[in-house]
Amino acid sequence: MALIVQKYGGTSVGSSERIKHVARRVARWQREGHQLVVVVSAMSGETNRLLALAREIQAHPDPRELDVMVSTGEQVTIALLSMALMDLGLTARSYTGSQVKILTDNAYTKARIVNIDEENIRRDLSEGYIVVVAGFQGVDAAGNITTLGRGGSDTTGVALAAALDADECQIYTDVDGVYTTDPRIVPEARRLKTITFEEMLEMSSLGSKVLQIRSVEFAGKYRVKLRVLSSFEEESVGTLITFEEDGKMEQATISGIAFNHDEAKITILGVPDRPGIAYQILGPVGDAGVDVDMIVQNVGQDGLTDFSFTVHRSDYVRTLEILKPVAAHIKAREVQGGDKIAKVSVVGVGMRSHAGIASTAFRTLAEEGINIQMISTSEIKISVVIDEKYMELAVRVLHKAFGLEQPA
Amino acid sequence: MALIVQKYGGTSVGSSERIKHVARRVARWQREGHQLVVVVSAMSGETNRLLALAREIQAHPDPRELDVMVSTGEQVTIALLSMALMDLGLTARSYTGSQVKILTDNAYTKARIVNIDEENIRRDLSEGYIVVVAGFQGVDAAGNITTLGRGGSDTTGVALAAALDADECQIYTDVDGVYTTDPRIVPEARRLKTITFEEMLEMSSLGSKVLQIRSVEFAGKYRVKLRVLSSFEEESVGTLITFEEDGKMEQATISGIAFNHDEAKITILGVPDRPGIAYQILGPVGDAGVDVDMIVQNVGQDGLTDFSFTVHRSDYVRTLEILKPVAAHIKAREVQGGDKIAKVSVVGVGMRSHAGIASTAFRTLAEEGINIQMISTSEIKISVVIDEKYMELAVRVLHKAFGLEQPA
Repeated sequence: MALIVQKYGGTSVGSSERIKHVARRVARWQREGHQLVVVVSAMSGETNRLLALAREIQAHPDPRELDVMVSTGEQVTIALLSMALMDLGLTARSYTGSQVKILTDNAYTKARIVNIDEENIRRDLSEGYIVVVAGFQGVDAAGNITTLGRGGSDTTGVALAAALDADECQIYTDVDGVYTTDPRIVPEARRLKTITFEEMLEMSSLGSKVLQIRSVEFAGKYRVKLRVLSSFEEESVGTLITFEEDGKMEQATISGIAFNHDEAKITILGVPDRPGIAYQILGPVGDAGVDVDMIVQNVGQDGLTDFSFTVHRSDYVRTLEILKPVAAHIKAREVQGGDKIAKVSVVGVGMRSHAGIASTAFRTLAEEGINIQMISTSEIKISVVIDEKYMELAVRVLHKAFGLEQPA
Repeated sequence: MALIVQKYGGTSVGSSERIKHVARRVARWQREGHQLVVVVSAMSGETNRLLALAREIQAHPDPRELDVMVSTGEQVTIALLSMALMDLGLTARSYTGSQVKILTDNAYTKARIVNIDEENIRRDLSEGYIVVVAGFQGVDAAGNITTLGRGGSDTTGVALAAALDADECQIYTDVDGVYTTDPRIVPEARRLKTITFEEMLEMSSLGSKVLQIRSVEFAGKYRVKLRVLSSFEEESVGTLITFEEDGKMEQATISGIAFNHDEAKITILGVPDRPGIAYQILGPVGDAGVDVDMIVQNVGQDGLTDFSFTVHRSDYVRTLEILKPVAAHIKAREVQGGDKIAKVSVVGVGMRSHAGIASTAFRTLAEEGINIQMISTSEIKISVVIDEKYMELAVRVLHKAFGLEQPA
């Protein structure tokens, strides 16, 4: 008998029919002898409906009251799923975040979980209940309702699995696992049976949006076994996210090709090459609330260097404006940029111990005549920025070059 | 400076425009120097939408989960109204029933308030906040969400007014007060400036559904000054519900004519006139969950009597079925009934000290050829059961006979 935490997203509980479908799946797991805690999101579309209603009242809705309001979305779903389980003859009980209680800080709309009181859940499980918990929400020390921000239901699932020391945390979604790349671009893309947390972090943040990155970090920190699988396919075993320490004997060199084209690049040319210059440039950008992704600075020449970074495309124009006075102040030569770019990344823990990955990647792109504008690397990934129009081509040829269509 | 509890029903907060309208009204009261606690219902239609969703899942929704679900209706409204108040530059804070906390028993879907912890509200008021509270809901000692049943928002308002020792509890609705009778039937019907609690109880239960009867009882018990007024009219002062002890010098004899046609009558003829017979008849009816309203038993003759009572029309057929074996058992002659009846009542505390009210009523009906089928009286009302088709006529002639169209 295992203790399993399952999380179902908004699409999986998007109608009464789908909720009944989830109930049957949960029932099957219980019949197999497992204890189940089920975390659910709001029915798809509900959170947006509530947000729209709030904006009719207040252009920038008060964060505390917004959390009071949008948290009702999951509250409706937990009740409906509990009813559906009872309708199958099972005993079930719902909990809001506040009832659990899932204690958070009081950063409304983006709160962080501080502690989970799992006592009631344990008691219910021991009495044979299926426990249904509202994702995405918690309560601060003063009793105010908080939400964890978009995608926070994944985090709720992982945090509950950690608090309960669950055997597995299953994240049900509309894809049946993590793929070597997006099958819409590369039809030969293959579902990975396993992926390491480190790779998953790179894949998530690079655009394979299967799981919220925060929940992956959380799972890594608390050593929660996380599995991504489809709520629409009955027999899928999904992708298990493992700790590298679990030591697969035959680790594939490369796990996948991630990509995104949500970014824009900005380069400051002719920057005086002196200590503190990176902070002088990025300080005002960060102060304006702009998130910076890739940062590249090369070795300078003649006391000057070029400094490049990428930001979300929606922040592009604003960031250029911010940098004009900065560039003048530090006496840089020029600010350039472009928003027709894509980032493509080769990800795999295997590259730590395998030489030649980078050169294979670069040769592959060169053979197709794809110019590389920026390069950035970590221990387990190589990212390149290229012209947006070559993105799909780059993903396809890299996927093939690393033999990702072959079963590992 | 007064402390005022205001309650707005579903129609008053039925759209974002109407919520803004309520916010402006609340703001005006605050500008006049008052402290305000505002209780709101779910937006009109929302509770029914949620109930329908629940029934898609479970034919008879689990009561605990139903309360988890429908309580979200008010939770949305408190957030929206708080936002609307902030949008006017005021400070406001919302509370769910659980956050207040409004402690109830755990009779889901029809819980009763046990205690209210008003400490947080008092603190907020002293800091200048407008406090917005979800009506209709509470929390039991174990932390489960409960609801007070239909119309429970009125009860929340009155209970909060009692707990806070408020100067007045204002119930905003879509009528601007309590009328001498329904203006749709008698255009000359007049709004009462005041009405006593006792009269109000008779008027409510008899069909003038301005206020939920439970909230009136509550207000009477805790001596809360209750005022009914319209959220749609700016200048209405509504109707103040007074304690008789407040002693109006010129108490009108009769306050109003109430009526309903939701009932059916049942008569058991030829019942042996012996102790315990009423219980033998009504015991099985009550056990089946059927509420009995009027009960009439006349003096018997030759050891036999006739026993009549009224039930809600929807319970009519079922009650007849229940009584068949009962009548056989007690050796009664026959069970008769009819569901084409109406009850019309003359209500007024003044009738205690004024003779001739009953005879005026009976003469008035006789002059119109309206046959009286049953009569039942209390200290402050006379009710008659008549043929349904004469209901409007009876209300009109009684209203005129007691001079109710004249200002008191």
